[in-house]
This record gives sequence, structure tokens and C-alpha cells, in this order.
Amino acid sequence: MITAYLWGTPNGFKVAIALEEMGLDYEIKWVNIGAGEQHEPDFLKVSPNGKIPAILDHGTGISLMESGAILQYLADKTGMFGGQSREDRWEVTQWLHWQMGGLGPMMGQVNHFRGLRDKVLYGETRYMNEAIRLFGVLDRQLDGRDFIAGDYSIADIAAVPWAGMAQIIGDELLTAHANVMAWIARNVARPATARAIALSPG
Amino acid sequence: MITAYLWGTPNGFKVAIALEEMGLDYEIKWVNIGAGEQHEPDFLKVSPNGKIPAILDHGTGISLMESGAILQYLADKTGMFGGQSREDRWEVTQWLHWQMGGLGPMMGQVNHFRGLRDKVLYGETRYMNEAIRLFGVLDRQLDGRDFIAGDYSIADIAAVPWAGMAQIIGDELLTAHANVMAWIARNVARPATARAIALSPG
Repeated sequence: MITAYLWGTPNGFKVAIALEEMGLDYEIKWVNIGAGEQHEPDFLKVSPNGKIPAILDHGTGISLMESGAILQYLADKTGMFGGQSREDRWEVTQWLHWQMGGLGPMMGQVNHFRGLRDKVLYGETRYMNEAIRLFGVLDRQLDGRDFIAGDYSIADIAAVPWAGMAQIIGDELLTAHANVMAWIARNVARPATARAIALSPG
Repeated sequence: MITAYLWGTPNGFKVAIALEEMGLDYEIKWVNIGAGEQHEPDFLKVSPNGKIPAILDHGTGISLMESGAILQYLADKTGMFGGQSREDRWEVTQWLHWQMGGLGPMMGQVNHFRGLRDKVLYGETRYMNEAIRLFGVLDRQLDGRDFIAGDYSIADIAAVPWAGMAQIIGDELLTAHANVMAWIARNVARPATARAIALSPG
């Protein structure tokens, strides 16, 4: 049994999607980041960085923070969605890190600057331009592929919640990138992914 | 033999340090990002995201982008610095992702905003505050440990070049975090790391 420490954010949904897609036995502990619960000492033992998501695998005693590490752990544990051949495995891994180091942080910044009441145009423009570039990279990678690394993988699980934020923060990211739009639709049509997305704190 | 596509940036130095520390046979192809060489079609075949670092392992035919993926690949290839026990391995992995998703991108933003001629105070403050928080997390993790995950690992290799940027962009990050300062010194005192840091494009 796995305890997943989550909240309704893109990084939280990654883990929920993985747990559902892999058919794992889990429970969710919602960590209300609006109420500052991520700073509580018990949570910091599991997640020293003070952020969700985190997991505790009661079977192995291993606890982990960082969504990218959690996805790799769950793929390793189940043998699912991490790539079958050696080539596939590293293809999945590079795109997982691309999401962790690029798409995720940069979409987070777009979301922040777009949400400011007192606009900071320099920041908003800077991060939207980078988001457009990253969506272009993803769109080209998805050209002729159903999923990022060929077969469905943790690279898709990582990227879908962040790419999906475009529905909130920037429609132009979607309308200009048809392959990304089709791929998001393909992901959310998966029953397990749909179940995960339907989860909500409370 | 491994071809490493690098430039003199923190993400490039991660790979140089790993190659030296692991004693691998390699050659460097410098990709002059100031001259736009990262956009050339031949490089994009190796690095579809158009960023350094990337590698091509001639022994396996595998090419990879994203420094985090490259470090995991090299650790897997050599059996070095990825953690020996299962617990160690996942401890290393979570801190590697912490660097990829947090320390790296956020220090990159501090560097950008500090370097602007026309100051954008909101951005500079936002990212410096996050850098201070991240240095605090790292400082606590290093309390009583020589290296981030206990033994020397790819988590250190990933984090040192970015933490070291504090010497350029914000001395206050170092003076307030004695464990981080001592850890940087411990890393750069390693002969292989020193050799890697001494490499320069040209």
C-alpha cells in the first residue's frame, strides 16, 4: 500500500495518474498547501523540500519527494510505462527530465505571471515565449507518434498535467499546436487517467 | 567512446564532471550557444529541445539530451554514483530531480534577472527568495552529511555547478549557508571535478 501526499496541482495529478494507470493500491493524504500544511514537521520528514507530491511505500518503507523521482520509482516497481527496451527506457527518461526541468517550471512561471493583479509584462512575456518554444518542441516530437516516447509512458504522465494548464493560461498554446491538442485528448480519454483527474481534495 | 555536446554552462559542467569522475573515454564537441549552434539540424537530432548538454554513446548508439537523464545513464552504465542499496538509489534520485526541477531552473532565473540592464525588481526578488529557500533546504540536508545523499553521487554532480553560481550572482546565498559552502569546497577539491571545471570551450 502506498500513501500519496497530494494536492490538486499538476505535480500532484502526475502521481494520481500513475497510481491509477498502474492499478496500485493507494490512499491519498491531501496536503492543503493553501493552509500551509506542507510546512508541518511530519510532512517535511517525507518531503524535505516542503512540496507535494510525496509518497510512502509501506511495502518497502521507502518515502520519496519530487514527482519525477516518484514516477521513476513507480515505473520501476511495476515494470510499467518506463520503456521496455534499453533504447525506449532512455527515450522515456530524457523526456521525463525535459518535463521536470523545462515544461513544468516554465509553465509554472507563466501561470504565476498571468495571475498577477499588478502586471509584470517583462516576466509574462519571457515565460510565455519559453512556453511557446516548449510546446513547439513537444508538437514536433508528437508528429507521427501517439505518445511522447512512442508507447504510453511516464513521460506522458509527467507532461500532460502541465500541458493541460494551457487550457487555463493560454489558449494560443493549444490552437497553434494540433499534435499537442490531440495528444492531450488521447490521454484524458484513458479511463484510469480520467479517474485520476476526477479526484479532488477534501 | 562518448561524444559530449557541451558549453561552459552549469548544465554542461554536470556532464563534464560525471565523465571525469567516472573515468570514461570521451571527446567534447563544444556547441557555441552564443553563436546559435544549438539550433543546427545535426544537433537537434541529438537534442530535440535544442539545448546542451547532450551525449552520443558510440558503444550503444544511444543519444540523450537533458543533463538529469545523462547523469542517470552514465551512473547506470558505470555502476558509479547512483546509489548502491535500493534506499540509496532512490535517495539519490529524488535529490537529482530536486536539482532538475528546482535549484537549476530557479538559479537560472535569478541569474537572468540579476543580469538585466533594465531592472525588473519583482522578478529579481521572486527568484532570489526561492533561491534562498532552496539553499536552506540543501543546507539542512547537508547538516551532518559530507554529500547530499550520504555517499558522493550524481545528486552532488547535478547540484554543485548550480549552487556554485552563487559565487557570481549572490554571495548572501553562501554566507548564510555554511554547510553548502563547505560542501562546494569538498566537491571542487576532488581532482576529477577540478579537471572538469578547468575545461573551457575553444
